[in-house]
Amino acid sequence: MAVGEDKLPALLPVAGVRLGTVSAGIKTAGRRDLVLIELAAGSHCVGVFTRNAFCAAPVTVAREHLQQANARPRYLLVNTGNANAGTGKQGLRDARSCCDALALATGVSSAEVLPFSTGVIGEPLPVERITTALPDAIAGLDESGWADAAQGILTTDTRPKGLSVTFSVDGRNYVVTGIAKGAGMIRPNMATMLGYVATDAAVAPDVLQKILADAANLSFNRITIDGDTSTNDACMLVATGAAGNEPLQAGDDSPLQRALVDAVQEVCVGLAQGLVRDGEGASKFVTVTVNGGRTEQECLDVGFTIGHSPLVKTALFASDPNWGRLLAAIGRAGLESLDVDRVSVFLNEVLIAENGARAASYSEEQGVAAMAPEDIVIRIELDRGDASASVWTTDFSYDYVRINAEYRT
Amino acid sequence: MAVGEDKLPALLPVAGVRLGTVSAGIKTAGRRDLVLIELAAGSHCVGVFTRNAFCAAPVTVAREHLQQANARPRYLLVNTGNANAGTGKQGLRDARSCCDALALATGVSSAEVLPFSTGVIGEPLPVERITTALPDAIAGLDESGWADAAQGILTTDTRPKGLSVTFSVDGRNYVVTGIAKGAGMIRPNMATMLGYVATDAAVAPDVLQKILADAANLSFNRITIDGDTSTNDACMLVATGAAGNEPLQAGDDSPLQRALVDAVQEVCVGLAQGLVRDGEGASKFVTVTVNGGRTEQECLDVGFTIGHSPLVKTALFASDPNWGRLLAAIGRAGLESLDVDRVSVFLNEVLIAENGARAASYSEEQGVAAMAPEDIVIRIELDRGDASASVWTTDFSYDYVRINAEYRT
Repeated sequence: MAVGEDKLPALLPVAGVRLGTVSAGIKTAGRRDLVLIELAAGSHCVGVFTRNAFCAAPVTVAREHLQQANARPRYLLVNTGNANAGTGKQGLRDARSCCDALALATGVSSAEVLPFSTGVIGEPLPVERITTALPDAIAGLDESGWADAAQGILTTDTRPKGLSVTFSVDGRNYVVTGIAKGAGMIRPNMATMLGYVATDAAVAPDVLQKILADAANLSFNRITIDGDTSTNDACMLVATGAAGNEPLQAGDDSPLQRALVDAVQEVCVGLAQGLVRDGEGASKFVTVTVNGGRTEQECLDVGFTIGHSPLVKTALFASDPNWGRLLAAIGRAGLESLDVDRVSVFLNEVLIAENGARAASYSEEQGVAAMAPEDIVIRIELDRGDASASVWTTDFSYDYVRINAEYRT
Repeated sequence: MAVGEDKLPALLPVAGVRLGTVSAGIKTAGRRDLVLIELAAGSHCVGVFTRNAFCAAPVTVAREHLQQANARPRYLLVNTGNANAGTGKQGLRDARSCCDALALATGVSSAEVLPFSTGVIGEPLPVERITTALPDAIAGLDESGWADAAQGILTTDTRPKGLSVTFSVDGRNYVVTGIAKGAGMIRPNMATMLGYVATDAAVAPDVLQKILADAANLSFNRITIDGDTSTNDACMLVATGAAGNEPLQAGDDSPLQRALVDAVQEVCVGLAQGLVRDGEGASKFVTVTVNGGRTEQECLDVGFTIGHSPLVKTALFASDPNWGRLLAAIGRAGLESLDVDRVSVFLNEVLIAENGARAASYSEEQGVAAMAPEDIVIRIELDRGDASASVWTTDFSYDYVRINAEYRT
């Protein structure tokens, strides 16, 4: 199952980025499972990675190479079908071998290649299949390769995810294009959320890192399917500089910087919501908006407590306006001296609870009607401050259990 | 579904405690839904309650009365079929009305009555049905009423839970008997874990409070079905003093005190495990034991991260020895500078993962055999300290989704 529109929008090229997608036969013969992303010389590339202590071999190697290459990688190499996770020291050697082979074939240094893997865990990476397919991937590099790449990075996702945003500042046009994969914060076999976002703007690496960190914080870090986080999660942001602007520097507060921040955030939020809509077994797309908190963090605490609650999620699956489970989740979110009599709860703008009880105006018919759509907004008013935050999540269905019970190591 | 032995063991009377169980027709005609527990004059009674900010009316009233009565309540009044939660100020009035009626009928003060409710939320408590049934409940009070009471406090539980432990110190015999209800940390309609434990030992109230807090911490606070906590949770410990010993005082480190601590803990752990075995949709009873932590808290963090992980729980339901999901859960438990190469993972004593990868000695056949029993022990060795902790949990099944999706507000 998946929720909402499933057509990939037009993905616009980003000058300085070429993509090649081929079939290396890593797990399934004929499936396109290897994506090569080439960044023009002079590009900057930054990343955010999983905080899981058990991180996969390619994450370790990508972090190392990113530091050595001083944020100037030239190639991102992504394979599906095998996560190269839970593979110990052999996994590190295998990830490095793939980088070495690509570096040799393209005349760059090994540190200028970043590896990414997603798929089954605990199986050795089939290095030879990957290196054998590299010449075709290199030959196929094309600026219009985004849609194929969006397909090529998928594992058990039911649909590709991608988005482009354009903007103009001072008569110059810019583009931000991104693709992502993942149908849970952790895929069944620890196989990951991956995101690749690029712009033709010129941006200094420290500024680029902050733009990515802030955008990820407002997008990928605000979604939850099941509360689990993967060992392979990674999101990369590339700035090629092909648009020809003066590079954005730290401390700038220019119209261009603000426009770029907004565009990257819009792409990341769109990709993150796309992951939730394709969440495992999802039949609802749920926005939990918490207003009136003392701090953004306490709004997030309430949002995630609701988003992680199996009781709330099973009620959503049943389209049951179960305000009691919502109140109970709010009550255990750990907010200091919460005055429950000030809290009110809305389901798709129907007031269902206030003063610690069902709203007097509320009728069961209203609640059932509010829960009928695929898209649900749960709005919580805490009435104790000015902070707000939203998180996005799905329901918990039989299909979630089926998908994750049937998927074997 | 439920896991393991379902026969209630013999529950021994506790001198000074009498119980009466009757049908008040609160929700379902003919169902025994009202339990009255009488404590002999001179008894002490202490409690631990839900930390949920949205606590139910009876929890608020029971806390107030407990303070006013100076730990000397005379009656505990428990109804099922209605949680008196999410009922606002009317709920508080209703809980007090029931206490008033019982106080009048028995000649005690209203503050000497503690109310407890469990069942559906958001419905007004049918006070008259309860007060009408009180004379029968009083007439039926009996020291041998424990088994009937264990049945009478249930809601959607599939079996009663109770346990007695006896011990002797200095030639004097003592007993601890307890009953509990609940099939999740939160029942489908916020309707609760309740526990009632009594001993005939004489114990000063501050000592009694510490014994209960410690026992709850090692039992009810170490189980999870779904991570949700109820608005009605309560566990009471009564000491009647009928055994005739010199009352235990703070600072004592007597053989009697140690024996009583052990017995109360044994009863609470047995009851807590009984709740997990009757967990909603449970097909496995899972002990997660974490050894070699720097602190007990970090062992608990790892244990609960595993116990709450939907991916681990669906794998348990499928009897899938999915070591990758276990490693991923350990890795995101937030342990500072965890050296993943020192971690090893055992499933029913089969070593399945070490050095960040599948164990070399491990075979899929071993894993499948280890996962076959209903009772599973997941043992994690962190190898970075001397602390240990265990938590108990269940798997996540289609039945969990069915039970919680079908149960309507």
